Amino acid sequence: MSESFQTIQSIGSNALLKKITNFDAYKNKNVIRSIGDDAAVIKESNDSLILLTSDTYVEGVDFDPTYTPFHHLGYKIVSAGVSDIYAMNGMPEAVLINLAVPNRMSVQMIEDLYKGIYAAGKNNEVEVVGGDLKANHANLVVSISVYGKAENDSITYRKGANEGDAICVTGDVGGALAGLRILMREKKYWEEHGDESVQPELGDYQFVVKRQLVPEARRDLIEILKKEGIVPTSMIDITKGLVSEISALSDASELGAYIYQAALPIAVETRQVADEMQEDVDRYALFGGEDLEIMFTLSEKKVEEFVKHFSDFVVIGRMVAKEEGMKMQTAEGDVVSFDDLS
Amino acid sequence: MSESFQTIQSIGSNALLKKITNFDAYKNKNVIRSIGDDAAVIKESNDSLILLTSDTYVEGVDFDPTYTPFHHLGYKIVSAGVSDIYAMNGMPEAVLINLAVPNRMSVQMIEDLYKGIYAAGKNNEVEVVGGDLKANHANLVVSISVYGKAENDSITYRKGANEGDAICVTGDVGGALAGLRILMREKKYWEEHGDESVQPELGDYQFVVKRQLVPEARRDLIEILKKEGIVPTSMIDITKGLVSEISALSDASELGAYIYQAALPIAVETRQVADEMQEDVDRYALFGGEDLEIMFTLSEKKVEEFVKHFSDFVVIGRMVAKEEGMKMQTAEGDVVSFDDLS
Repeated sequence: MSESFQTIQSIGSNALLKKITNFDAYKNKNVIRSIGDDAAVIKESNDSLILLTSDTYVEGVDFDPTYTPFHHLGYKIVSAGVSDIYAMNGMPEAVLINLAVPNRMSVQMIEDLYKGIYAAGKNNEVEVVGGDLKANHANLVVSISVYGKAENDSITYRKGANEGDAICVTGDVGGALAGLRILMREKKYWEEHGDESVQPELGDYQFVVKRQLVPEARRDLIEILKKEGIVPTSMIDITKGLVSEISALSDASELGAYIYQAALPIAVETRQVADEMQEDVDRYALFGGEDLEIMFTLSEKKVEEFVKHFSDFVVIGRMVAKEEGMKMQTAEGDVVSFDDLS
Repeated sequence: MSESFQTIQSIGSNALLKKITNFDAYKNKNVIRSIGDDAAVIKESNDSLILLTSDTYVEGVDFDPTYTPFHHLGYKIVSAGVSDIYAMNGMPEAVLINLAVPNRMSVQMIEDLYKGIYAAGKNNEVEVVGGDLKANHANLVVSISVYGKAENDSITYRKGANEGDAICVTGDVGGALAGLRILMREKKYWEEHGDESVQPELGDYQFVVKRQLVPEARRDLIEILKKEGIVPTSMIDITKGLVSEISALSDASELGAYIYQAALPIAVETRQVADEMQEDVDRYALFGGEDLEIMFTLSEKKVEEFVKHFSDFVVIGRMVAKEEGMKMQTAEGDVVSFDDLS
């Protein structure tokens, strides 16, 4: 290969994305928001907006078939897809599913995958309206595109948070990573003991394993926000981990953030797994992704109002001036910068 | 593997699709047309419709990097994607691009791919509004989703043709297959002679190679139809070959078709390749796919009107009663059934 060959690994996917999105390209005047938020936003009519988002899952990279039942995979892919629409304070309407399928996979496996897709479709009221099915000589690659809608007066971006706003997080975080740790331990056990017929005892870990394999997107939050006429100032879903999402939201809003470690919402089952693994559960909460919870910001006053109608969220901190940076107050009372966390 | 293991090959992808689409699934009341046409159709407002379509391309299955420059691949993927929107008499607005990229590919290769994507985006006035970029340890898999719009009073489906309607085809067909035959011959030559530094002499075959590598979608047809206020009774784009598309359109319209072999639009360059390969050029025209031309039906009267404004199409036959089946009159005057063609 020539000297000019530059691997993607050497520059990283973010730098590659930056290169690609810097090209001179056609701009559609109806496009309000392109790459850079949870979903693209396109003007539809005077008071309505179209949302589009897309994800790809690669066998052996994004999922491991050893411990991922295919109906769970299908379910999770749809949950994660619609979660990006909810994260814009929108509602999903339809999905397209694209598969590149190796022939070593059976008809039953693909049927299982679709059973999971349809199950999540029902729970999120989205129809599978199309897609593509291709043979692959290598591994399974699944892409999903989601089409949704939002209203002009309630669409919520990553940008828009105000200084002083409370940072709210639904449900609990770190559970999906705890589930992954358990599944990876089981896989290692199977590999070392070579007896695949012995089914793992996952009963004790049901909560975290479900968080990893069949996560639910937070449609309920969006429904209640709409019903109560409350619009968050900014919003993002938690797929890459709390620290990453707080940073993205703060950057977009051109603000800093101040977080209380003691306020992180962590399930008791997640704590138990971390204890068993002799790991720090706060790291699960801060860096574990895939929880599909929603982070949103609201003024203190609105929080007081909203909590009367919806109780499954906590305030983990507040937005501060950009100059104050990204900081966390630890349980011991120390203040650490996000830069020192990773 | 257990006795119940059923390979996808053993039942075929059509049977698999049928199994999958027969599952009990959520139906969105706004979805007018789901799987089964060139694009899904969703109600937007009183006079406007949303179109969604999606395709996947697998390295080594759908494209061969040996003779496919990546900027051509990017261009073709967008052309083929928007062609499905034009085939509904709609206009594309935006695309999402999903990549699973092996690390052996360089930054430059992905940049080239995107240069082609953006070039076709400009020509078709679509913006790349998002997507996903994932690592793959195996081959390159590219998915594209296209979002477009159509009007309630001009959307055109595969169904809708009337008995007696003329079957019209834009441009010429069989050229993309002729180009593929040339590229495959060149590849064989390289493999046998082992000298990749010798660039092939493709100058003589420029027309057909372009038809294969950088096909243009027929935006011009849709623009002129709109300008002249003419709405075809049915429409489909030619991606799987003429015989396949005529059959799909006739099935959807619950009619038969009668085709004149002598009327098939074949470029002189395509004939030359077939001659050189000692193959039947009519088979290229009937079974070669990927031309991205549009087949549409119009009453005889409307054809007379339309031809005054647009000349790049020919009438290749007419729609007949379902009972008359699918037939072609050969250049020699014999009448053969489509069933005897393949």
